[in-house]
Amino acid sequence: METTKYILTEKEMPTSWYNILPDLPKPLPPELHPGTKEPTILPPPLFAAAVNDQEYSKERYIEIPEEVQAIYHTWRPTNLHRAYRLEKALDTPAKIFYKYEGSSAAGSHKLNTAVAQAYYNKKEGITRLATETGAGQWGSALALGCQFFGLELKVYMVKVSYHQKPYRRILMESWGAQVVPSPSEDTEIGRRILAENPDSTGSLGIAISEAIEDAFGRDDTHYSIGSVANHVLLHQTVIGQESIKQMEMADAYPDIIVGCVGGGSNFAGLFLPWVKDKLSGKKSDLRIICVEPQACPTLTRGKYTWDFGDVAGMAPILKMHTLGHNFVPPPVHAGGLRYHGMAPIICHLYQMGMLEARAEYQKPIFEAGIQFARTEGIIPAPEPAHAVKATIDEAIACRESGQSKTILLALSGHGHFDLGAYDEYLSGNLQDYEFPEEKMKEAMASLPEVPSA
Amino acid sequence: METTKYILTEKEMPTSWYNILPDLPKPLPPELHPGTKEPTILPPPLFAAAVNDQEYSKERYIEIPEEVQAIYHTWRPTNLHRAYRLEKALDTPAKIFYKYEGSSAAGSHKLNTAVAQAYYNKKEGITRLATETGAGQWGSALALGCQFFGLELKVYMVKVSYHQKPYRRILMESWGAQVVPSPSEDTEIGRRILAENPDSTGSLGIAISEAIEDAFGRDDTHYSIGSVANHVLLHQTVIGQESIKQMEMADAYPDIIVGCVGGGSNFAGLFLPWVKDKLSGKKSDLRIICVEPQACPTLTRGKYTWDFGDVAGMAPILKMHTLGHNFVPPPVHAGGLRYHGMAPIICHLYQMGMLEARAEYQKPIFEAGIQFARTEGIIPAPEPAHAVKATIDEAIACRESGQSKTILLALSGHGHFDLGAYDEYLSGNLQDYEFPEEKMKEAMASLPEVPSA
Repeated sequence: METTKYILTEKEMPTSWYNILPDLPKPLPPELHPGTKEPTILPPPLFAAAVNDQEYSKERYIEIPEEVQAIYHTWRPTNLHRAYRLEKALDTPAKIFYKYEGSSAAGSHKLNTAVAQAYYNKKEGITRLATETGAGQWGSALALGCQFFGLELKVYMVKVSYHQKPYRRILMESWGAQVVPSPSEDTEIGRRILAENPDSTGSLGIAISEAIEDAFGRDDTHYSIGSVANHVLLHQTVIGQESIKQMEMADAYPDIIVGCVGGGSNFAGLFLPWVKDKLSGKKSDLRIICVEPQACPTLTRGKYTWDFGDVAGMAPILKMHTLGHNFVPPPVHAGGLRYHGMAPIICHLYQMGMLEARAEYQKPIFEAGIQFARTEGIIPAPEPAHAVKATIDEAIACRESGQSKTILLALSGHGHFDLGAYDEYLSGNLQDYEFPEEKMKEAMASLPEVPSA
Repeated sequence: METTKYILTEKEMPTSWYNILPDLPKPLPPELHPGTKEPTILPPPLFAAAVNDQEYSKERYIEIPEEVQAIYHTWRPTNLHRAYRLEKALDTPAKIFYKYEGSSAAGSHKLNTAVAQAYYNKKEGITRLATETGAGQWGSALALGCQFFGLELKVYMVKVSYHQKPYRRILMESWGAQVVPSPSEDTEIGRRILAENPDSTGSLGIAISEAIEDAFGRDDTHYSIGSVANHVLLHQTVIGQESIKQMEMADAYPDIIVGCVGGGSNFAGLFLPWVKDKLSGKKSDLRIICVEPQACPTLTRGKYTWDFGDVAGMAPILKMHTLGHNFVPPPVHAGGLRYHGMAPIICHLYQMGMLEARAEYQKPIFEAGIQFARTEGIIPAPEPAHAVKATIDEAIACRESGQSKTILLALSGHGHFDLGAYDEYLSGNLQDYEFPEEKMKEAMASLPEVPSA
């Protein structure tokens, strides 16, 4: 019988994260202070010192603390699966492997960085974190991370999601977090917005600003972010390093690596340990495909320039592909892909020609998700369903060309809390959204002026 | 670093199911025909022939077909975890291990028998199955099982759950099943009930009757059941056999095995391969604890007698602990534990003194579920949260007595679709239900008369 899963023991789990920064042939542009517009490190009151160090580290490998490894072991290493049944359904000579991060209790890759950030903050004497969450994927992961280390957590959850997606709120509360709908009465910016517009349904930008204000206002509290930043991508590289060992077990090497990108941390976590081989020329024909929503096509339609990481202009200014920090994308179900920017590391590699990008509508995304569910069993979250779609397209291209390529798919999480979206799709009520180009043009008018750039 | 999980490779997965019947010192009472009240085999038009054979087999080990093994491999073997963090929170010298079945795509142990039943039916030329489901756990597992083998499935879902628990309906539909609220217009019995009471919210008994009528009426269709029957328990023994290998890896042997019981298949799947050692005297002090809801205390309050397996009296008559086939338990959230009867194999062993039983209220169940979630990460379904409660109680008893016992817990599934119940608990709105003794007495008045008994 053929092997279906490639399983690593706890002893085989990587004990270091892989840091791409020293391996970049051109250095990553600096992050700029939102006020001075000068190169800066992340403001110290915001993050743990260890995490600030990691953000700009020149070390190629950074040891995963034992306490973090011990928690990782509650669900890691995660399995690499061979998608035999999907291959058969597609009648393709392609070999499809998928690295599945949905087996964590939080249901996605987000827990990899949540645990690390909670650990470092705890170690530095911080007793409480504040963060924002949209649909709740990040907030729930951080709730569990904080619970593991006995930290309090306050989550500012975008109000429309707070009411529409109660299950993720309950998940956070089950893990002990305090969750408030944002805008809230608990911060100055929240009160100001509510005074202007009592019916505000909130936005990720407002929620970030509330969480940052919360953290700045209290000595016991730091802020925590779930994607985009270099240290977050770093923590996710445990995924890709495991996948290298597992592909070796399968006696295979990917021709194509596919993942979805919102802030970029899930896919970078998988591909960064592989991209070395492309940078070094060892596997120069390796294709790495970033898949984003048509509704928020940051890489394929955005501009590579300096922009704020958040809407309120309180976070550092980053050199990245952006649709403008005021851009509000249409309400596609892949909430985790609705970010106006993109991790600077991903943008930098994209500029170097190391990555491909494509944008997809959501109806074909859910069609792909259903095909995956009906062959492999797992219901993908709408975000990785984007990557499933591109995988299927590449596998069909193999069928047509007769080439037996090896595809490695980043399956970042399950869709158990997204079944409402699947219901819309199955009942024919799901709508597609065109890219609102005019809204991007408006948003691009308020980019920060960066004299030094 | 201590080992957190005991992981088996696919090659180490058992290749046979373990059949307890030949190892029972006293034979299991026969099943009786619902009409003649004479010993019978399950009516052949109802189930696949292979499954009927298994129901009464005298073979100790029954080979798992290769095709079923291949599907099992998509998620099996499942991990055995050591609950270090729960132990620490309880400050107990007890060693707690849990065998987690929630890692299947369907989220519970139910898939073990769903895949087997779909396979045998497919092999015998059946192209369609019919079944009932309450909260949807069984229906969703069978939907995936049928999808794997290309069978159609029609699920009669208790109407109140159909409307209250849309996520499990969507899950079934995502896996290609047709789901109708029961009572439906699609069967004679459904139409009759709707004519009498257009507002009927349905019951599991009605849904079973609709599914059986559907199966009897079509040559291409068989009926499928998710618990209670001997063959269902048989298919679940892959769990317990894996756990034996894994406990050996941990160099441990359980003093106590704990699980929840509704129909009984999840817990029997874990403990049957272990109970041998108690029957043979090799480990005569092994304690096996069955945990049921106070609202439906079949083992602790029911009578051991002959009763119908279903409400409508169409299924075989079984010798079992029962609260009466007309007994309708209070609406506790553990929908999977609301069955009036219990697997005959479990009742038989209970009568022999091989098993203990206890009943729990639902508030302490959810308290235990939250404590588990906050230490081990996984949110247990309300059903296995009953077993978590008893595990915690036994671990606390160890703390008090200073004994370091080894506890093996059956964690049969996750609670991702039960978060509404956790929300009720966390917000203080969850209510407990006393056992409605008068309703049981009424129900016991309509037991079938069995002259031969």
